[in-house]
Amino acid sequence: MNRSSSPAPEDTTVELSERQCWELLRRSTIGRLAVGSADGPDIFPVTYLVDHGTVVFRTAAGTKLAASSHHRVAFEVDGWDDPPSTAWSVVLRGRAERLLDREENLHALALPLAPWQEGRKPWFVRVVPDSTTGRRLTLTAQARAALHPVR
Amino acid sequence: MNRSSSPAPEDTTVELSERQCWELLRRSTIGRLAVGSADGPDIFPVTYLVDHGTVVFRTAAGTKLAASSHHRVAFEVDGWDDPPSTAWSVVLRGRAERLLDREENLHALALPLAPWQEGRKPWFVRVVPDSTTGRRLTLTAQARAALHPVR
Repeated sequence: MNRSSSPAPEDTTVELSERQCWELLRRSTIGRLAVGSADGPDIFPVTYLVDHGTVVFRTAAGTKLAASSHHRVAFEVDGWDDPPSTAWSVVLRGRAERLLDREENLHALALPLAPWQEGRKPWFVRVVPDSTTGRRLTLTAQARAALHPVR
Repeated sequence: MNRSSSPAPEDTTVELSERQCWELLRRSTIGRLAVGSADGPDIFPVTYLVDHGTVVFRTAAGTKLAASSHHRVAFEVDGWDDPPSTAWSVVLRGRAERLLDREENLHALALPLAPWQEGRKPWFVRVVPDSTTGRRLTLTAQARAALHPVR
């Protein structure tokens, strides 16, 4: 599958600036939250919104809430151009904070955070990053072909 | 944004069987690997392939390789129907193993694992799950509208 007879392949990865990372984060709606646990890492997809250099999502009580209360987390969002030529990924690493303060909750309730499913998700969690990194990579012809017809 | 005046919302989440999870995993190409580190969890998007009840991906030397050598990891894949009516997410939790055995590497090299970018990724890593869980949820009208025009 690899064209190993062709000239030495280039590494086509470009690091994104923090500003570019936030632009991409603002344009997307779904991210994945990684949390640690005694039983190893776990991942949850979440619908999120950017709010003043942080990311906010809603959740019900449960593992996602417990695991993300004042612990270190990673939050990743990715995507690609349409039609596909490059793909990108942005990763925030930092601390998750459950919003307990009334003012903060009122602020969060006013955010245009569209729910993805019916059902009560009474808690807001905010990811406060201390590191924001992103990469954009040029897709191979195979990847472009795989992405073009369907998601 | 919430139609809080409507009747009590139902929880529209359905747990997927292990067989349904693997069917979905086989149909996708991109997943996200969560690994632990001294500095908290980290996430990497990877192009993967299902191989006999495990997931295999390629990587270069680096954090992703170091972090996923014989440590516990989580691996998540998600998607939605086209046009969007439900969305799903599958999570494997288990151990990552770097393939060191020659036979295993020859087997992995023969897998139709399409590279997403040019550049050397000489290592194969296999995720051997001890837990495979998945959920499918019915999307709200807002989510359907958000997903329909663009990814």
